Amino acid sequence: MKQINLYEANDFSERAMKKFLVHDSPYFRIINFNFRAGQEMPVHSHDLEGQLSLVVLEGEGDFLGKDGASFPGRRGDVVISEIAEPHGFRARTEVRLLVTIAPPL
Amino acid sequence: MKQINLYEANDFSERAMKKFLVHDSPYFRIINFNFRAGQEMPVHSHDLEGQLSLVVLEGEGDFLGKDGASFPGRRGDVVISEIAEPHGFRARTEVRLLVTIAPPL
Repeated sequence: MKQINLYEANDFSERAMKKFLVHDSPYFRIINFNFRAGQEMPVHSHDLEGQLSLVVLEGEGDFLGKDGASFPGRRGDVVISEIAEPHGFRARTEVRLLVTIAPPL
Repeated sequence: MKQINLYEANDFSERAMKKFLVHDSPYFRIINFNFRAGQEMPVHSHDLEGQLSLVVLEGEGDFLGKDGASFPGRRGDVVISEIAEPHGFRARTEVRLLVTIAPPL
């Protein structure tokens, strides 16, 4: 087993969301993104089979989708998206987001 | 996209850990387990390829492994285990745990 504490492993940047690769294997990739209020993961997608989960560990923001769509997300929210479906996130407070991609890109 | 808030979707039981299936697809299965202090997910394993992540969303407890091994886990901890490797969890406080299994069993 492998153990990582996200509060020790990753912090925040004033410039942009701060990315930390938690795990990568043939089965899934797990990435932690930390945002200051106002920082954003721009909407994107990949033309690949598979899904990802986005889990708000802390804070509040908005999930972003295609054509400018957005819907609020807060602590405890889990969003499932196809990898091929446009997805993003914009933070309203400090946010810790955990993303799991299966299979990895 | 599909959105679920774990704080709305799952609560606690006095009898045993309370399980909530968040998502199931050919890519991964996501399950939320809520524990009262003292409740336990007994050590288990499955003779299958793949890995799982265990994320402590809230609370404190101990991850359990083979031969009685245990190590502390708290909010923000991510543990990666092979599906075939014995794993479990025992709560010391109320705990919300999120488990992602890829590929699903």
